[in-house]
Amino acid sequence: MQAAATLFAEHGYDATGVAVICNTADVSKGAFYHHFASKNDLFVALLESWLADLDTRLESIVLEETPFPEALSSMAKMIDEIFLRYRGQILILFEFWMQASRDPEVWNAVIAPFQRYESYFAKMIEKGIQEGSLADMDPQAGARTLISLAVGLLLQGMLLSRSSAGSSSLNGFGGGKPAQKSISILLDGFKRLK
Amino acid sequence: MQAAATLFAEHGYDATGVAVICNTADVSKGAFYHHFASKNDLFVALLESWLADLDTRLESIVLEETPFPEALSSMAKMIDEIFLRYRGQILILFEFWMQASRDPEVWNAVIAPFQRYESYFAKMIEKGIQEGSLADMDPQAGARTLISLAVGLLLQGMLLSRSSAGSSSLNGFGGGKPAQKSISILLDGFKRLK
Repeated sequence: MQAAATLFAEHGYDATGVAVICNTADVSKGAFYHHFASKNDLFVALLESWLADLDTRLESIVLEETPFPEALSSMAKMIDEIFLRYRGQILILFEFWMQASRDPEVWNAVIAPFQRYESYFAKMIEKGIQEGSLADMDPQAGARTLISLAVGLLLQGMLLSRSSAGSSSLNGFGGGKPAQKSISILLDGFKRLK
Repeated sequence: MQAAATLFAEHGYDATGVAVICNTADVSKGAFYHHFASKNDLFVALLESWLADLDTRLESIVLEETPFPEALSSMAKMIDEIFLRYRGQILILFEFWMQASRDPEVWNAVIAPFQRYESYFAKMIEKGIQEGSLADMDPQAGARTLISLAVGLLLQGMLLSRSSAGSSSLNGFGGGKPAQKSISILLDGFKRLK
């Protein structure tokens, strides 16, 4: 899995075959197919190991029974941290999504985390409305907005941080903690009293 | 260009070579290279033709001197429309971004629209702050938030609209006009009085 992650990051998901993964990891193809049904299957395992970290962080926020505004701020901080730590993997993640959109077989594995996070955030927003810290809104729409912003921040940060510094005001996640700024603007929208 | 767009959408950017584009369009390789230096170059031309439509729509919003909140609502409507009209191209666009992040040569062509839209939205936000319809904020951060949300909405909509209906509450851009809902939540954040 480690060899695959490195190769995917370097050459892209598409361009990396099972043979070169086996070669690099010094395992036989037989051993590979003993553990994984396919390259897609290996990727799903990789994805799940990355998301396990995210899930643990999110769970700790829930367990602490934090009010929504503070919980959202913690999550924004998480996005900035995740970006710095997993930058290479994020590129592979997006590549895999593109890939999966042409391959119905792996589709469910890709959709599952979205559904999990959407229902998770919708519940948090519902709680926030009940505790009075959020304006009344459609929790589903709020959850989707939050995920879209997070996905967009990760994608934009990843793409723009490659641009040459100096020539551009867009320096990605260069240190301004953009997720925290952006999510605080969105949070003001969540809190707004109608 | 039309043949290339169709082939990219069907097989992916990576998997589509110049030879098959020439074959499908019934032109010689010589004719191809008379117009385009490379496949990347062709893609940049495609991208510019797609963005020309977006630019025209955005310009009309500016020319009308619309106040920021209304301008933003018009733009949200645009995102929903663009999604429905250009869905195939959006997938190619993301694929090309992934590709470009490994290829410094085409990087500037990809970064240019981001910079253009960022400075465009920052100016609109500045105007909104001056006219009193927006809370005081860092216009650059506001612009980046808006672009991130738009990018995330397009990506999520594209990915999720492929999922089987019924089994999922996430039905992408199935008809709920998600961009309009999400951007209206963000707009509340922009308007919030501190």
